[in-house]
Amino acid sequence: MKKPWAGRFTEKTEKIVEGFTSSISFDKRLYECDIDGSIAHTKMLGKQKIISRREMELIIRGLDKVREEIRNNKFKFRDELEDIHMNIEHALIKKIGSAGGKLHTARSRNDQTALDLRLFMREEISSILKLITSFQRVLLDIAERHVDTLMPGYTHLQRAQPVLLAHHLLAYLEMLERDKARFNDCLKRVNVMPLGSAALAGTTLPVDRKYVAGLLKFPAISGNSMDAVSDRDFVIEFLSASGLLMAHLSRLAEELVLWSSAEFGFIELPDAYSTGSSIMPQKKNPDVPELIRGKTGRVFGSLIAMLTVLKGLPLSYNRDLQEDKEPVFDAVDTVKSCLSVLIKMLTEIKFKINVLKNAADAGFSTATDIAEYLVRKGIPFRNAHEAAGRIVRYCICKNKTLAGLSLKEFKGFSKLIERDIFKCLTVRESVNKKTSYGGTSKKNVLAALKKFKKLLK
Amino acid sequence: MKKPWAGRFTEKTEKIVEGFTSSISFDKRLYECDIDGSIAHTKMLGKQKIISRREMELIIRGLDKVREEIRNNKFKFRDELEDIHMNIEHALIKKIGSAGGKLHTARSRNDQTALDLRLFMREEISSILKLITSFQRVLLDIAERHVDTLMPGYTHLQRAQPVLLAHHLLAYLEMLERDKARFNDCLKRVNVMPLGSAALAGTTLPVDRKYVAGLLKFPAISGNSMDAVSDRDFVIEFLSASGLLMAHLSRLAEELVLWSSAEFGFIELPDAYSTGSSIMPQKKNPDVPELIRGKTGRVFGSLIAMLTVLKGLPLSYNRDLQEDKEPVFDAVDTVKSCLSVLIKMLTEIKFKINVLKNAADAGFSTATDIAEYLVRKGIPFRNAHEAAGRIVRYCICKNKTLAGLSLKEFKGFSKLIERDIFKCLTVRESVNKKTSYGGTSKKNVLAALKKFKKLLK
Amino acid sequence: MKKPWAGRFTEKTEKIVEGFTSSISFDKRLYECDIDGSIAHTKMLGKQKIISRREMELIIRGLDKVREEIRNNKFKFRDELEDIHMNIEHALIKKIGSAGGKLHTARSRNDQTALDLRLFMREEISSILKLITSFQRVLLDIAERHVDTLMPGYTHLQRAQPVLLAHHLLAYLEMLERDKARFNDCLKRVNVMPLGSAALAGTTLPVDRKYVAGLLKFPAISGNSMDAVSDRDFVIEFLSASGLLMAHLSRLAEELVLWSSAEFGFIELPDAYSTGSSIMPQKKNPDVPELIRGKTGRVFGSLIAMLTVLKGLPLSYNRDLQEDKEPVFDAVDTVKSCLSVLIKMLTEIKFKINVLKNAADAGFSTATDIAEYLVRKGIPFRNAHEAAGRIVRYCICKNKTLAGLSLKEFKGFSKLIERDIFKCLTVRESVNKKTSYGGTSKKNVLAALKKFKKLLK
Amino acid sequence: MKKPWAGRFTEKTEKIVEGFTSSISFDKRLYECDIDGSIAHTKMLGKQKIISRREMELIIRGLDKVREEIRNNKFKFRDELEDIHMNIEHALIKKIGSAGGKLHTARSRNDQTALDLRLFMREEISSILKLITSFQRVLLDIAERHVDTLMPGYTHLQRAQPVLLAHHLLAYLEMLERDKARFNDCLKRVNVMPLGSAALAGTTLPVDRKYVAGLLKFPAISGNSMDAVSDRDFVIEFLSASGLLMAHLSRLAEELVLWSSAEFGFIELPDAYSTGSSIMPQKKNPDVPELIRGKTGRVFGSLIAMLTVLKGLPLSYNRDLQEDKEPVFDAVDTVKSCLSVLIKMLTEIKFKINVLKNAADAGFSTATDIAEYLVRKGIPFRNAHEAAGRIVRYCICKNKTLAGLSLKEFKGFSKLIERDIFKCLTVRESVNKKTSYGGTSKKNVLAALKKFKKLLK
Repeated sequence: MKKPWAGRFTEKTEKIVEGFTSSISFDKRLYECDIDGSIAHTKMLGKQKIISRREMELIIRGLDKVREEIRNNKFKFRDELEDIHMNIEHALIKKIGSAGGKLHTARSRNDQTALDLRLFMREEISSILKLITSFQRVLLDIAERHVDTLMPGYTHLQRAQPVLLAHHLLAYLEMLERDKARFNDCLKRVNVMPLGSAALAGTTLPVDRKYVAGLLKFPAISGNSMDAVSDRDFVIEFLSASGLLMAHLSRLAEELVLWSSAEFGFIELPDAYSTGSSIMPQKKNPDVPELIRGKTGRVFGSLIAMLTVLKGLPLSYNRDLQEDKEPVFDAVDTVKSCLSVLIKMLTEIKFKINVLKNAADAGFSTATDIAEYLVRKGIPFRNAHEAAGRIVRYCICKNKTLAGLSLKEFKGFSKLIERDIFKCLTVRESVNKKTSYGGTSKKNVLAALKKFKKLLK
Repeated sequence: MKKPWAGRFTEKTEKIVEGFTSSISFDKRLYECDIDGSIAHTKMLGKQKIISRREMELIIRGLDKVREEIRNNKFKFRDELEDIHMNIEHALIKKIGSAGGKLHTARSRNDQTALDLRLFMREEISSILKLITSFQRVLLDIAERHVDTLMPGYTHLQRAQPVLLAHHLLAYLEMLERDKARFNDCLKRVNVMPLGSAALAGTTLPVDRKYVAGLLKFPAISGNSMDAVSDRDFVIEFLSASGLLMAHLSRLAEELVLWSSAEFGFIELPDAYSTGSSIMPQKKNPDVPELIRGKTGRVFGSLIAMLTVLKGLPLSYNRDLQEDKEPVFDAVDTVKSCLSVLIKMLTEIKFKINVLKNAADAGFSTATDIAEYLVRKGIPFRNAHEAAGRIVRYCICKNKTLAGLSLKEFKGFSKLIERDIFKCLTVRESVNKKTSYGGTSKKNVLAALKKFKKLLK
Repeated sequence: MKKPWAGRFTEKTEKIVEGFTSSISFDKRLYECDIDGSIAHTKMLGKQKIISRREMELIIRGLDKVREEIRNNKFKFRDELEDIHMNIEHALIKKIGSAGGKLHTARSRNDQTALDLRLFMREEISSILKLITSFQRVLLDIAERHVDTLMPGYTHLQRAQPVLLAHHLLAYLEMLERDKARFNDCLKRVNVMPLGSAALAGTTLPVDRKYVAGLLKFPAISGNSMDAVSDRDFVIEFLSASGLLMAHLSRLAEELVLWSSAEFGFIELPDAYSTGSSIMPQKKNPDVPELIRGKTGRVFGSLIAMLTVLKGLPLSYNRDLQEDKEPVFDAVDTVKSCLSVLIKMLTEIKFKINVLKNAADAGFSTATDIAEYLVRKGIPFRNAHEAAGRIVRYCICKNKTLAGLSLKEFKGFSKLIERDIFKCLTVRESVNKKTSYGGTSKKNVLAALKKFKKLLK
Repeated sequence: MKKPWAGRFTEKTEKIVEGFTSSISFDKRLYECDIDGSIAHTKMLGKQKIISRREMELIIRGLDKVREEIRNNKFKFRDELEDIHMNIEHALIKKIGSAGGKLHTARSRNDQTALDLRLFMREEISSILKLITSFQRVLLDIAERHVDTLMPGYTHLQRAQPVLLAHHLLAYLEMLERDKARFNDCLKRVNVMPLGSAALAGTTLPVDRKYVAGLLKFPAISGNSMDAVSDRDFVIEFLSASGLLMAHLSRLAEELVLWSSAEFGFIELPDAYSTGSSIMPQKKNPDVPELIRGKTGRVFGSLIAMLTVLKGLPLSYNRDLQEDKEPVFDAVDTVKSCLSVLIKMLTEIKFKINVLKNAADAGFSTATDIAEYLVRKGIPFRNAHEAAGRIVRYCICKNKTLAGLSLKEFKGFSKLIERDIFKCLTVRESVNKKTSYGGTSKKNVLAALKKFKKLLK
């Protein structure tokens, strides 16, 4: 088959080169975007009288037919036609004859491929945003059910201070809110229309780029043709936002793995979301969070892949940029599937309220409250902290709990301690006194839940 | 020296552990931010009557003195005091006595370190934004001087179509404009006040976080205490924006290296910005752009370092997060020094206008214009493209230029070609006909220069 | 369909979980290795009388039939059977009945999947080694044809000193030789037999691991069952070796792109290995080397992906490790296709000997020879270097070449310069005097070619 | 100050360029290697009569004096002298006069810097190898003390089968053994002498590279001068081996963090190796393993930094390569400090034998043994596995342990079960029956300990 650019060439392309340089095996995924873009381009060519009204209609009808064929799996993609653009154009010409040869007027594959990827990503970012919101709603629901569930808050994986389970989950709502903000910021830079930049310098034909942008609902068009065909910032920004989202999911996944261990025992994973062992009959494994944690790597990897591609690349378009699509596709699939499975799984997880409460009670998680109690009595924090530390050491030696000390024993550490100290020692009191904005008191948590409820409506 | 948290401990810290866990060797760089934060915190403690007015004043005066000492290199940082926070607090207590022990009331190092880094990064992002703008102005100046300088536009490092040098440089102005947008977006998420989250759960003391935020000019405060102490999104986002900026600089650097090669010969680097060889007397090396290109790697590396840290980290604060500062410091220094040296160097570069023009003339860079000429005559683009291709091949065989063909020879390829074809063949005409928005015509370029001039005022 | 591990479970697996956790879509690629491993395992079970001779034969015959079906595309892979291991075992049981249920005796998927991947990689490393050798042979052939071709040697992309093209190509032969050494070193650690480690602790059944290793030609078996099922070092080591190989190919690719530019013009890419432009009829693009350069990114990315997976993973097997296969597959395919296309392309490249020679002549590439001439006359190198530098500056000012200076002019820089200086000034002499071991003199280059010829036989 | 290469230049270097391109702030760390290399080079120049005997002696004595000054902190490093090489040469010339100007004869900084880094890394790899061995010895000691300590073996962080603590620790001995193998393999490629390659092409002076190699104890010398000055494979290979070592340490660190949590409670960290909280008096944090886990990121980052540098770099030396040293220094420091602190800390950790034993007893960790029991009675593994699974489910429903079932209850699941089943149910029996090579039986573990004892002597 003759290449569209064969005019200047005297030899045919080697088979191995065709296989190596062809992108059709993966960029066919862009066929809808490619056809949408081509139709908008055709309408503009018609409006600008670069092609006739009849040609315009012919091409659009032809493209619609090609789209139908692809949708119905009746289209044969061919390696030797290199990419989705040429596969579609070739089919179009076969269908409608020489008018089809006018489709590529005033554009190049350099601006076309940028357009297709931007259309694709715009759509997918919007899907991802919806999935994040759905996931936030799931977390919010669980949090609402657990505004009274106490659990240990951890630093350094050591029980530190008691918190509400709702408060812990709200931390993820905050992270995910930032993730959405980042995807939205990224979207602004994805949502720029490159078509009409042609190969790199613009075109001499009287195109109307704003019209195309309007048809395709782009709020902005690219301002420099050389930048437009070589810019892949939006890809890297997307991969970076995806990597950070995955980092968040990996943190939650780690916690789910920890919590479903025998040692923590904080949650029961539903059978339907666990898998067994091919050899150990008693096992119930948290495969889903493990895989999410593992899949974080591939998104980090895709980010590095694309940064590597851009490093040291002179202007303008270089074929290296063809490597932009697979990392995007893989990140989109990874992010969406991880969110989807989490949305369903989280709703089914059973939190073991008593285990959580007992864990919060154990240890000396209210020691900070004693220190702050002493501060309120006027002792400098450093001394208060040290006194509380000595009380803890005393308890460890004597094998006692804080609540198990007598007032006399307390007074041994500070004369200023009175009977009201016992109000500081229960985990519930400790939590409810953390009333600083953003703290874990129930009042705060209820306010935060309300805020998110409104936000996620 | 007794550790501030020694109350509960029976053994002293091993020397090797002190050295290993201490961060003072690098986090001392944050001393200004740390003291600013502590003063704001102290003012709030005073206002809220958590400490007395006198204590407040004492602490503030003490902190100011510590700041002076550090500024004047009279402060002795000590490894065994672990970090900048404890070094300063310890010095304060030595200076003002037990009132100093009240400074750490209602806060933890977990929220304090987050505050310090945010203050630091806010400042540095603002510096970076200014440097990018300065660099854009330099590029703009050069572009203005070269609105008539023709050069070859490249795709695949093959001469593709002629463009104006100004147009080429404007591509970088666009990239840098996006970089600023990204840093500004990042800034929104840096600019959130975490103090008052205490260790992870908030505090029982009646702090006023909004007041602190006001004093430190934070437009927002963190909404969840657990998230606040474990969030390093802003670090990753900053490193990602920095990585992308460096990718852009590496592209420009690559071009500077290419252009200063004997083969391209497009520019003359000033002696003052080149270095010689220790062995080859004739060499003048573009070390500066080479180093910029190389330094791209370290910023990519820092991004990966921090993503790796976050992967799979359970809530809330974990000591792994101490690894956040060095990548930020290194990226800040790298980005700022690369921009600074480029700002000065670019102004001194001499573009060799004739070499650029000759390169633009050579080859068949107006072949696309012939194709578009034929399109305007009604020939489908595909056929026009092929005809132009055949003309090029003919020229190669006959060793002729496009402008060197006779009308008769042209007509041999298409009857539709008329004398006006010769208006398409000069590089200047080719450029000026690229009037599509964002294209390289002088009119467009002047408009783009005007846009940026306004933008960068 | 009932899961093999369903005994302990009360609910069925959710569809979304099946899709999310299933690896059959990619690990089916391992079917040959899986069956080879299973047959060896079965033979051992038979030999050890853990299963009967009849069962052994039944299973082996069954596995052979499954293999045939897969080879002939008659096998239906099922998502709900999770992976290649279970798909094959399930088919086996359907074919031969309950004897098939004995195949999984004394093993787990944890050791089985490690075995499969090791078998696969062993094979692929061997293919890669052969491809590298073939590629070296191609480079060697070209080098042999160019033992007299002069070209500029570059540092900082500035012409530095003349070298032989053969010498330049021999640099890549060295790099590739190291790549082979690294793959061979990696192979030692791939070539370790994990089967019989069972889930993580070994098995109570009387297996003979050495027998299995012998059947599968493994020179070593793993020494610790927990390590055996969680070790993926060999994957990372392979990805690292592949990344470095790609870095080498990216360097060569960069040079091919540079050399095929109009500015360098050192080579002519064969039409059959270039592609054209969809818009610019005159273009002939070095897409193949550009893509190779770009594909470097994906291998770096895969390396980071896998390092991320391993970070912070407790012992022993975790499901995260399922992410090991796709990076390996992608790196194998990338490396092999890049080498294959280079092998064919390089042989077709035409070096333009005159252009190379002229470039070597231009500039002042023999200035170092003048400095070394002066050193031989007894002048300290530092002064000799400076004198040569002044001569170059003089030539630039006067627009002369080194060979164009008169003896009198030379003597103006140093009394010690005699008529024999003119023997130092030609590029050919310069090259042939670089007789230090590893230097570019023809004598050295011939010796290096001989060395590699012997090595690559 | 005049630059050593100033002959050809008409302007002085800008201050900002000096600061930007100078490497003295970090490469001064190489001064010992640089002087060692220079002395060997000088001896060779003398032997070859390129310089006189007197000059040789003068230079060597001068270099020794410079070394003394640097060692005693009496040397003033200067930015404007760019790097360690020029700083030392400049001081030498000031000390001994014009003979010092002969030191740089027949070499370039391009081969010198490669030599220095190789000498440095050779030394450091040897230190790292010793540290790994020391760390293995520590682990071996602990393992020997715990050949009878039972603990749960985990897969998916779920208790899977009981193992010996010694067996678990031996898994790390295996990993570390592979790390050493990798560093040793890397060392082969570090241990190659590049000096005498000069700038890129070799030298015309009659050097004896083998003599230099002999003096510096290099077993091999580089075979191609262009490769020699642009090769940084050994850096990447080192960073990759370091990254993998850190991945191993991060896995152990993760386990130490888990084990020191209240929930696992398997170990007690010594006070001297933990740190407290600035706010929570009861906390004892595993900061050391957390930091090790976090520091993994910076080594991964350095690896990516260097791969990025190499990507697409044409031959031969380019200034980008100056970015090679900092990643190496940082990785060396990180790896050595992590190993050193682990060596000391591990010896002090107290394993809580009873907690480990109880955890091993709990759950149904001998269920696989029941399945294998049934296999020995002739039941196909798949059915045996399922029967054991049903037994576990029965126990969960009835809230019983496996050992708590009656024979009658067992027989309800399989007629083949006899009284000897009870020998399979204790954790000790389970462990000791795992006699497959590499399994966790005490016999195996003792053999493995013996193997390593011999290996590490």
